[in-house]
Amino acid sequence: MELLEERIRKDGKVLPGNILKVGSFINHQIDIELLDKLGEEFARRFSGQTVTKILTIEASGIAIACAAARFFNKCPVVFAKKSASSNVSDDCYRTSVYSYTHSKNYNVIVAKQYLSATDTILLIDDFLANGSALSGLFDIVKQSGAGIAGAGIVIEKGFQEGGEILRKKGYRIESLAIVDSMSVENGITFRSGN
Amino acid sequence: MELLEERIRKDGKVLPGNILKVGSFINHQIDIELLDKLGEEFARRFSGQTVTKILTIEASGIAIACAAARFFNKCPVVFAKKSASSNVSDDCYRTSVYSYTHSKNYNVIVAKQYLSATDTILLIDDFLANGSALSGLFDIVKQSGAGIAGAGIVIEKGFQEGGEILRKKGYRIESLAIVDSMSVENGITFRSGN
Repeated sequence: MELLEERIRKDGKVLPGNILKVGSFINHQIDIELLDKLGEEFARRFSGQTVTKILTIEASGIAIACAAARFFNKCPVVFAKKSASSNVSDDCYRTSVYSYTHSKNYNVIVAKQYLSATDTILLIDDFLANGSALSGLFDIVKQSGAGIAGAGIVIEKGFQEGGEILRKKGYRIESLAIVDSMSVENGITFRSGN
Repeated sequence: MELLEERIRKDGKVLPGNILKVGSFINHQIDIELLDKLGEEFARRFSGQTVTKILTIEASGIAIACAAARFFNKCPVVFAKKSASSNVSDDCYRTSVYSYTHSKNYNVIVAKQYLSATDTILLIDDFLANGSALSGLFDIVKQSGAGIAGAGIVIEKGFQEGGEILRKKGYRIESLAIVDSMSVENGITFRSGN
């Protein structure tokens, strides 16, 4: 998505350790106009697919999921919660996600009542890198028995393995910008034709 | 706000310990149509006031803040982050907030670059009870030197002291529903004329 790639080039910051900071417009400060355009583009890419509910994960996914929902007939958004507690509750679907940012596992939960076998779920998140968070969300949807339309991602780090692994499993992943390489010295190269 | 009060009566759940669960439409699953109406009502209540930026706190405030922003000229939304680390960074405004839900203090941070003395900030959050989170957000805005338009809250627990304390300090707080009392046995009584 040209507009997004331009914005990342302009306002994104590449830091050592494969970190791409987009806090000025995506995940700390949010550009509401851009958000709408991202939502519209997700709808274009998944047009023709039934989506009854959008599932994302707190916190950065929420704004994007809500922006997308208005282009999917204002379907409900559910956000998975990160939980420090490992208490097992019968009321929740639960999975474990490894955070490379924080070097630890955390539990991700969704109350069972918000996902049902009659739903078709679109997953939305801001980043896809190693795929741990997104795999966790797919796992939760599978536990619920709901159908899966696919996943819409704002920025995929194409040089990490998450996208490839999940696509090989048969999931449809639509990333609005795929970074093929990035470095402090040479900036960002986006995958062409995406 | 009539529509909101009706919805809380219909889908909210009062649990022992003064807990009001609104996870089916506000803060776990999100009703996008309702969200828009909440945003519109915040704009009506703060009409005539300049708002250049909306500040909220992760995670439940984000969707509401983004919905509100579209009625404030699509101004940017900034969400404060909860941080386990107490590392002091020169790049961030920082305050400490006590969570009654989790019985602990946590740090709340906002990168300095996203709030400036020329901004006029509207605070948005889902709940106001003891006022700890909202006080923390006011504190952060004051550190930045920005002006404060006030705070828009979806549900205020009027039987707790946060709203009264903050209004006495001179802050304008607009709560779309104020619960004056609630109990498992007798249900919810909303403040009339709000």
